[in-house]
Amino acid sequence: MTSFALWEQSLTGTVRTGAQIPDEYRIDRSGFTPVGAPEVLVQAKTVEDVQNAVTYASDTDLSVVIRGAGTGLAGGASAGSGSLVLDVSGLNRITDIAPADELAVVEPGVITAALDAEAGRYGLRYAPDPASASISTIGGNIATNAGGLRCVKYGVTGDSVLGLSVVLADGRLIHTGRRTAKGVAGLDLTSLFTGSEGTLGVIVSATVRLQPKPIDTVTIAAYFDDVEQAAAATTAVLAARVRPSIMELLDEASLRQSQDFLGLPSDAAGAFVVAQTDGFGAHIEARIVQEVFGQFSSRVSVGDDPQVSDELLAIRRAALPALERHGRALIEDIAVPRTRIADAIRAVAEIATRHRTAIYTFGHAGDGNLHPIIVVDRDDPDAYDRAVAAADEIFGTALSLGGTITGEHGVGILKRRWLERELGPDGVELQRTIRRALDPTGLFNPGKTV
Amino acid sequence: MTSFALWEQSLTGTVRTGAQIPDEYRIDRSGFTPVGAPEVLVQAKTVEDVQNAVTYASDTDLSVVIRGAGTGLAGGASAGSGSLVLDVSGLNRITDIAPADELAVVEPGVITAALDAEAGRYGLRYAPDPASASISTIGGNIATNAGGLRCVKYGVTGDSVLGLSVVLADGRLIHTGRRTAKGVAGLDLTSLFTGSEGTLGVIVSATVRLQPKPIDTVTIAAYFDDVEQAAAATTAVLAARVRPSIMELLDEASLRQSQDFLGLPSDAAGAFVVAQTDGFGAHIEARIVQEVFGQFSSRVSVGDDPQVSDELLAIRRAALPALERHGRALIEDIAVPRTRIADAIRAVAEIATRHRTAIYTFGHAGDGNLHPIIVVDRDDPDAYDRAVAAADEIFGTALSLGGTITGEHGVGILKRRWLERELGPDGVELQRTIRRALDPTGLFNPGKTV
Repeated sequence: MTSFALWEQSLTGTVRTGAQIPDEYRIDRSGFTPVGAPEVLVQAKTVEDVQNAVTYASDTDLSVVIRGAGTGLAGGASAGSGSLVLDVSGLNRITDIAPADELAVVEPGVITAALDAEAGRYGLRYAPDPASASISTIGGNIATNAGGLRCVKYGVTGDSVLGLSVVLADGRLIHTGRRTAKGVAGLDLTSLFTGSEGTLGVIVSATVRLQPKPIDTVTIAAYFDDVEQAAAATTAVLAARVRPSIMELLDEASLRQSQDFLGLPSDAAGAFVVAQTDGFGAHIEARIVQEVFGQFSSRVSVGDDPQVSDELLAIRRAALPALERHGRALIEDIAVPRTRIADAIRAVAEIATRHRTAIYTFGHAGDGNLHPIIVVDRDDPDAYDRAVAAADEIFGTALSLGGTITGEHGVGILKRRWLERELGPDGVELQRTIRRALDPTGLFNPGKTV
Repeated sequence: MTSFALWEQSLTGTVRTGAQIPDEYRIDRSGFTPVGAPEVLVQAKTVEDVQNAVTYASDTDLSVVIRGAGTGLAGGASAGSGSLVLDVSGLNRITDIAPADELAVVEPGVITAALDAEAGRYGLRYAPDPASASISTIGGNIATNAGGLRCVKYGVTGDSVLGLSVVLADGRLIHTGRRTAKGVAGLDLTSLFTGSEGTLGVIVSATVRLQPKPIDTVTIAAYFDDVEQAAAATTAVLAARVRPSIMELLDEASLRQSQDFLGLPSDAAGAFVVAQTDGFGAHIEARIVQEVFGQFSSRVSVGDDPQVSDELLAIRRAALPALERHGRALIEDIAVPRTRIADAIRAVAEIATRHRTAIYTFGHAGDGNLHPIIVVDRDDPDAYDRAVAAADEIFGTALSLGGTITGEHGVGILKRRWLERELGPDGVELQRTIRRALDPTGLFNPGKTV
């Protein structure tokens, strides 16, 4: 046993216990509230603090819940009884930027948009752009392998992670990956820790790839009569060999909410798609997108100045805030093969009707990653149960269409009971085997994911 | 214990034992010959064959060496005493191509170029292009996370793998990943098996990403006075935001050999670089590459018809066959941060002089992935020892420049003793922990990698 007082003195960061811990450290943005409250909060400032906290938790039979900005959407950072919250948001330095090698080394608490801004000083950018980029941390992005709007061309967070430094359950600091573009020395443990949702170790540093800022960006948007036409248009764009950097779709219900939220005239349509092309071929690709959209829609807009682009994208960005006005928004996150987008949206609409619940669907059409948003009326006592029943069917729909229950938000605690349906019993057992190998006592995030 | 006769009858494929096994099943293209010979060869035809073979080997205390086309360069498929060679080249069907979803499902024995050709019927391609694509299998490419020329724009093999079916050491068939572009349900075991070099399980099916064939391709080549100028030119191309699909460099010695091999006039130069741009912006990007190369070279050629492109690329492709005329070629495979390419090539040349051995360096400049080729004179009894001593220093150089001992070929058996120098003792122990968790009895490829 470690003496608490001695241990506390050994840390550079701060420690709070019991009632001193602000309530916000129990929850993330998922809306999930755990039973009980954490026993200890460590606001780490150094890697040694992290190692000390992990060892202390292990010695005192506390579990460790790693926390960045707390913007997760699956309950991964929720912390209840018997836990030590290890807040790494104080490890927030960009320790190296190597412009010619197009990489940066960052601590986990760096806000994603801040890294992008710093890279911008060298004509570079950090390509992954989860919607939360201005408030979430790079460590949290890596822990959930976060997605975003630009994945269709630039990949998910994991595609930009070259190497990691991780504190393991036994307190050891290990390093994975490299500073080179390629490398195959040993198993790819960088990818194993990426998306591990705080269950395998504490990420204390990351080497990430930067990319040049694109030379041109053009935005194209179109209104369609229905989601089938909209989905067919997005598939046709890809079949025309265009790689848009963004290709987002809103269904009729979410489009109407966005327009209302932005004070725009209600431009009645069955669906809305906004795409961007970028790079040296941006204008050529944009012309093709415009042509293709024109085969499915009579209302296509194009803009290559930032203001018009921003206006067209604003409709997509407003979708979630527009819905959050009406109640508690349960943000689902299914992905299906791209050709099944229209089927998925129709199925979700049918589920909404049957369960008498409001569901609005929008998402990353280029990736087949859809966010059905179930809006729960806070004044209706049965609304939440109906929403959960609808969510259950939405997950079933995603799986039956050859998809996944989570495209980019993670499993956390909210989707835990659906995970086995996707992975199967052997798949879950294999996941557990890996987890047990790295964390034999179940120190990290017990009760989350598998 | 399983009865051999009964077991053999249960298989769809064929079994050979002892002296019936052709000698070629002991070795791969690394030049490494193991002690002894395999006891059993199973030429599997079905997934059940693979499961039966794994279970049989486990029951009879044989190790399992998985084999595709045997084109590996690190000894990963070499098979000596006490082993069962599990040849999966007979599982060679393309089981599904979904053009609109841009993916294919393939068995491991499919030749990589055959998959690419089949995708071509739909205007698509399989982007990863190891130099061995016409003779190596997709399963082997995945097992080594193979690289190639196009990685600088299109990534390595792993970037195109969406999901895998794998037979584990206990004979269970498990599935990882998905058919969707994105997905984060559970740990990323697809990436864990990719590059595992036959140490974690037998890949029996893979879902791989296809991509549109690029609309245009332009080739640009230039002769430089020295490797510093050539390396600076490649870095400047990337700094100009261009993403070439290929950017290859030859040093003076390998350039001279290539020219001689092709019967070209010896165009004296200190280094040669050939680049390709592709896609909608190909011509715009090619003009920029031409301008940038022109700042460092007075001899720049550009070609956008296939014949000129082939001629320019031929110089790169001839490099290895040209050297193999002169003796046994030890193909090294270091990667360094891109800005250290010139330093690495200079250091290798100095090592060559000091160890009185011939070393020729060429490789993927866009990735910092260099292949120093040590040519061992078969008539000189001490040449091999000098080559090994030189290789040892080359690995040290790669690590001291912040690089890796293997960019794309793998560790296998040849680089095993250098792996700990790169990963460190804790890194190696962590790798072993994962390996033990999945293969507790050391069934798969014992003595290889970690």
